[in-house]
Amino acid sequence: MIDLDGTGALLLIGDSERSADMLYATGFNAPDPFVFLQTEHTTYLLIGDLELDRARDQARVDEVLSLSRYDKLAAEGRDEAANGEDYQARRYRALILLMEELGVRSAKVPADFPVGAADVLRQAGFRLEVATGPLFPHRSRKEPGEIDAIVQALAAAQSSMGCAIEAIRSSSVDAEGRLVGVDGQILTSQRVRRLIHRSLLDDDCTGQHTIVACGEDGCDPHQQGSGPLRAGQPIILDIFPRSEESGYFGDITRTVLKGKASQRLRDLYRTVEDGQRLALERIRADVDGGDIHRAIETLFADKGFETGERNGRMQGFFHGTGHGLGLEIHEAPSIGKRRDILQVGQVVTVEPGLYYQNLGGVRLEDVVVVEEEGCRNLTSFPKYFEV
Amino acid sequence: MIDLDGTGALLLIGDSERSADMLYATGFNAPDPFVFLQTEHTTYLLIGDLELDRARDQARVDEVLSLSRYDKLAAEGRDEAANGEDYQARRYRALILLMEELGVRSAKVPADFPVGAADVLRQAGFRLEVATGPLFPHRSRKEPGEIDAIVQALAAAQSSMGCAIEAIRSSSVDAEGRLVGVDGQILTSQRVRRLIHRSLLDDDCTGQHTIVACGEDGCDPHQQGSGPLRAGQPIILDIFPRSEESGYFGDITRTVLKGKASQRLRDLYRTVEDGQRLALERIRADVDGGDIHRAIETLFADKGFETGERNGRMQGFFHGTGHGLGLEIHEAPSIGKRRDILQVGQVVTVEPGLYYQNLGGVRLEDVVVVEEEGCRNLTSFPKYFEV
Repeated sequence: MIDLDGTGALLLIGDSERSADMLYATGFNAPDPFVFLQTEHTTYLLIGDLELDRARDQARVDEVLSLSRYDKLAAEGRDEAANGEDYQARRYRALILLMEELGVRSAKVPADFPVGAADVLRQAGFRLEVATGPLFPHRSRKEPGEIDAIVQALAAAQSSMGCAIEAIRSSSVDAEGRLVGVDGQILTSQRVRRLIHRSLLDDDCTGQHTIVACGEDGCDPHQQGSGPLRAGQPIILDIFPRSEESGYFGDITRTVLKGKASQRLRDLYRTVEDGQRLALERIRADVDGGDIHRAIETLFADKGFETGERNGRMQGFFHGTGHGLGLEIHEAPSIGKRRDILQVGQVVTVEPGLYYQNLGGVRLEDVVVVEEEGCRNLTSFPKYFEV
Repeated sequence: MIDLDGTGALLLIGDSERSADMLYATGFNAPDPFVFLQTEHTTYLLIGDLELDRARDQARVDEVLSLSRYDKLAAEGRDEAANGEDYQARRYRALILLMEELGVRSAKVPADFPVGAADVLRQAGFRLEVATGPLFPHRSRKEPGEIDAIVQALAAAQSSMGCAIEAIRSSSVDAEGRLVGVDGQILTSQRVRRLIHRSLLDDDCTGQHTIVACGEDGCDPHQQGSGPLRAGQPIILDIFPRSEESGYFGDITRTVLKGKASQRLRDLYRTVEDGQRLALERIRADVDGGDIHRAIETLFADKGFETGERNGRMQGFFHGTGHGLGLEIHEAPSIGKRRDILQVGQVVTVEPGLYYQNLGGVRLEDVVVVEEEGCRNLTSFPKYFEV
């Protein structure tokens, strides 16, 4: 149970597919919104009839209550007009009834708590304290079971990385420099993405927005990539599946090149490797992620790889070094521009990259657990450039 | 551009992967939160550097603005302490700066607008009008291009339904009544779900929470199903993929049974078919979805299929008849207990079901477009029970 730290209660509204806090608090995965309420001694879930049995079976809460029961109670003694009233308003009234029944007069809510519900509750006299910063600070420090879940999702990601790189490695190159698969068909970003997603599926994970970005596509770090893959250009493969069962994410990036790389591209790749190594050596408890990020920026600049706007586009190293990984693909802590002191048990990505127009992009990403004296790399997939 | 109806402006904060309103407003698919602001004549997107180029390329807005630029402007002239301030607070200040620059003093926001942002804006003197009901009422009435996108996702769903049913049909039955695939392996819910997801992937759609629920599993309408499929028991297949490209959903449910069904199960199936037919005949513009739902309830009860709690569990027909389908799997309108007048162009599912312990569940679902004089069924997959 979450330590309430003297707050009256804790209140969440949302579905646990979109809200990682809800999934973390309840352990119950549901695609439609429901209510989680924690008082000093008890955790409650208020949910529609359709999910009632499953919630009673699966949710890690003390009591699962029927929303329709409170909805009916809330409607009792009200005039006819109430039947025509807004559906949402009735749901809010059901929640108010429950809170009154439990004697809850004030509650902590997350910053993303819906303002519609907040206004109604405040008007009804409830005091809401909006959390600044993470609702569950402990969420960033993973329990062993959570690390296992991340390792599993990461294993699926690594396995699909193997499929993707093998498809690139075993391809041939046509007269126009395009890669041709062993089946004689042009190898496109889309085809390799599909290979990856199929492999992830076989490991009960879902891949979305997987990046297979060749050449210029790779210069925009969020570009998913499309069209034929080409020899002699870096291909960024960034795979971040979510486990269907646990809800935890894995995350890995490798960059490969079919054929022989130019000296400039080899330098680019080695420099990114050096940047990542620097971070892996420095990550440990009580270190500021911002310091690590700046050290990589300095290293890159020292090696002649400048960052800044050129031809109206950002080039160089212009994203964070890493981010927390868990029930969300991006969560606390951050290893980037802002100050963020790393803590034991946090799971973070380490993914510096360099991107230049007319050259291409290189990014390498591993996932590590922050430890007292350093970090433990959960990623075992090898790093190599030319295939 | 959305008609503002005299409101000062419209303001959204969120990512368009989780917020369908954001995706609808901007046409820009991004997994991290950004800001959409609409004034009387212009639509703006305020977004981080990492997505800036892609947003300028893809978003259906007039101007894409750099969050970091406003962030820097907001930080100017502030003392050192400001550098250490909460990251989120700085983002809010950047938004306030933009709103001040545009002379926006009040804005309409959706009911799920984050209370953290709402509190900060209100404290800064902005007036927020929280929308009751849908933010974009027009979103429920689909344009031809949107219907095409739904038809595409539905085609993927139907194709995967074909794979799943073929696997069940071509299976054999072992001594314990379990289905055995042509490869000699036991056919489980998990295996059939994987077949479905692979097929969806081949059509560039993502399936999640796909239901393959046999026998007792099928009695809980949100139970995904697990373990060996069995002969002589109804198997509910509910597939609702999202198109990776368009973001629109398809949705289809069929119920099949391997071998010979009992007379009681055949009656159950025919009754659900009758209920669905009744709805398909009545759906048209200006009809109340609530009336259609109640007509099915009456039909089922008249045929001896009662609804209510039995042995502490809801049995019979205890979910809605249908829901709107679009950028969300469940959106307006509703065909259920509450009043909801159908409108031309709305796309709705029609999915009555009946569920009884020790018997099993049957659900049949098609997707239709509401028209002036009736409805057009977008689903062509045939309905049959025994395979």
